[in-house]
Amino acid sequence: MTAIIDPWGSVLVKDYEKIIKDFGLEIFTPKTFPKPNRIMRRGVVFAGRDLKRIAECLKKKKKFYALSGIMPSAEKIHFGNKMVVENLRYFQDHGAKTYILIADLEAAATRDISLEEAQKRALNFHIPAYIALGLDPKKTIFYFQSENRKVMNMGYEFAKKVTLNEFRSIYGQADPSRIMAAVLQSGDMLYPQTVEKMPGIIPVGVDQDPHVRLCRDIISRTRVKYDFVPISSLYHKFTPGLDGSLKMSKSKPGSCIELPEDIKSITKKIKAAKTGGRETVEKQRKLGGKPEECMIFELYKQHLINDDKELQKIYDKCKKGKLTCGEDKAHCIEHFKMFMQTFYANLEKARKQVSKLKFIR
Amino acid sequence: MTAIIDPWGSVLVKDYEKIIKDFGLEIFTPKTFPKPNRIMRRGVVFAGRDLKRIAECLKKKKKFYALSGIMPSAEKIHFGNKMVVENLRYFQDHGAKTYILIADLEAAATRDISLEEAQKRALNFHIPAYIALGLDPKKTIFYFQSENRKVMNMGYEFAKKVTLNEFRSIYGQADPSRIMAAVLQSGDMLYPQTVEKMPGIIPVGVDQDPHVRLCRDIISRTRVKYDFVPISSLYHKFTPGLDGSLKMSKSKPGSCIELPEDIKSITKKIKAAKTGGRETVEKQRKLGGKPEECMIFELYKQHLINDDKELQKIYDKCKKGKLTCGEDKAHCIEHFKMFMQTFYANLEKARKQVSKLKFIR
Repeated sequence: MTAIIDPWGSVLVKDYEKIIKDFGLEIFTPKTFPKPNRIMRRGVVFAGRDLKRIAECLKKKKKFYALSGIMPSAEKIHFGNKMVVENLRYFQDHGAKTYILIADLEAAATRDISLEEAQKRALNFHIPAYIALGLDPKKTIFYFQSENRKVMNMGYEFAKKVTLNEFRSIYGQADPSRIMAAVLQSGDMLYPQTVEKMPGIIPVGVDQDPHVRLCRDIISRTRVKYDFVPISSLYHKFTPGLDGSLKMSKSKPGSCIELPEDIKSITKKIKAAKTGGRETVEKQRKLGGKPEECMIFELYKQHLINDDKELQKIYDKCKKGKLTCGEDKAHCIEHFKMFMQTFYANLEKARKQVSKLKFIR
Repeated sequence: MTAIIDPWGSVLVKDYEKIIKDFGLEIFTPKTFPKPNRIMRRGVVFAGRDLKRIAECLKKKKKFYALSGIMPSAEKIHFGNKMVVENLRYFQDHGAKTYILIADLEAAATRDISLEEAQKRALNFHIPAYIALGLDPKKTIFYFQSENRKVMNMGYEFAKKVTLNEFRSIYGQADPSRIMAAVLQSGDMLYPQTVEKMPGIIPVGVDQDPHVRLCRDIISRTRVKYDFVPISSLYHKFTPGLDGSLKMSKSKPGSCIELPEDIKSITKKIKAAKTGGRETVEKQRKLGGKPEECMIFELYKQHLINDDKELQKIYDKCKKGKLTCGEDKAHCIEHFKMFMQTFYANLEKARKQVSKLKFIR
């Protein structure tokens, strides 16, 4: 097993090695795609499927698409969404036709809110939030699942192509609403190919891989009728919980910072976060800290610090014992302050752009 | 258990008593609805659900709808479709808003033909055939499942309301495509209520009752969000197989006459059909025939003879031993000849009307 390349070290390496092995994923390295973005360079993007197909498109400037979705049920988004936007933007800047679907149908089916409410929430918050995080609204094609006839049609057709046992083996369960959501998502991922056949990549959190696997199975079973190009996928790591767990989770609010969240609440959580510090300040000064085990450093790497050199400086300073955890947390809180201020300002601007967006209807 | 009222007797009474008991259906009698049509009077229509609700609409001239569907995958239709049309026409003549859905999505999902092919077949054959059988095209609202956004949206939402075990207990199995087809059909049955809330009745063969049950369960579980009026249903008996089995079945071609079918093939099948005749002509002359066990009489009753008095005459003549099975079969073949001639002529006329139909799109 090749180690995951992660230039600044990472917590939970073993978990990701296991995921790669269990799911049979391809390893992503900073050399996989040309001119990798920040999270590609830093090993936060770590795996995918059928990556060569997209590398080829990037290198030879061939047509391809990038697609991801917004679930408009929750009141807030999370840092995983930020990474999705960052990767979509990368592909967009490299010539991909970019799609964002709003999963209003899935939201209505799984959360018991009406389609109208789901759409309202998406227009008021989720879409502006994605734009605020860096999505270029002028170059992106948006659609609502509930309004995309081809997507819904394919969902119904694809159900014929999968057995109950397969759903169980892929998802661990097979209740009717999960089946519907899954086949609908396959419809989403292939929709751009009903407009124009071409390779496509789905940048998402690695927890979404079951949907990609199902879709690839469906592609191989509808070859005669549709002849879709197998889709590629790109996975980023989870943002780990502030307590050092694999991922931030709303069920443990102390482990999790949402988007947006007020700075008082963030401050409290950061002060309680797990670091790579030693038992005493003396020991830390003498032996140095362990940034590869530090949640604060992980936040810098994944989200808060854009400049590689600045990140490297912090890493070195910590390693040499010249940075105490207290100082570092205060520094982190400052970064969050700036981040949230910028986010709110961008969100306000983005809300004004929503009326100008291109929706497929 | 009240006996099924069936003025001219019927084969397979026990089977239908069992169906009523097993499914918990209401018994339909010629007195259930005012001015019953031919198959209602003759006990061919034998059961339903929530019939009082529709009787009330009929008597007090309240708004209601009648809806049924066309499956455009098969090359031909069958005599069950004819009974559906007859009942739809009854409701239409009594003021019902009438809907016909074309199940192109279900056809494409279950038969592996494209949506385009399913739609083409429906427009070329199935819709004209329904008109040829008596549906009034001017008073009927048609739609394709694949083009009805609300129906598809509801299908996806409804999946959340049913567990896998319920599907199993209703349908005997729960493969993904059956689940999808079932929730989609619930969407169909309730679609008219998204336009205007009112009672509705679904006239279908009794084998469709599982879909109605599922829909009624879904109605009771979506009360807060939708508050649909529970749907009613009306069931006709199967046209029995020519060999005396419960229903005509394509898997036993000798038992089954399709629409259309050429008269040579019909003649051969009718000659081999089971009758209520005695072992010898002498015995028949002496003891009389048993029309209630005769497939030819069943065809007269269900399909070929419109006039009740004519039907009564044949019944009496047979009972008195004044009609041999050979004569009767020749008579039946003549009726089929006329029926098919009329059907073909009407089909040609109806094909010209298709372009003028009202489709919801």
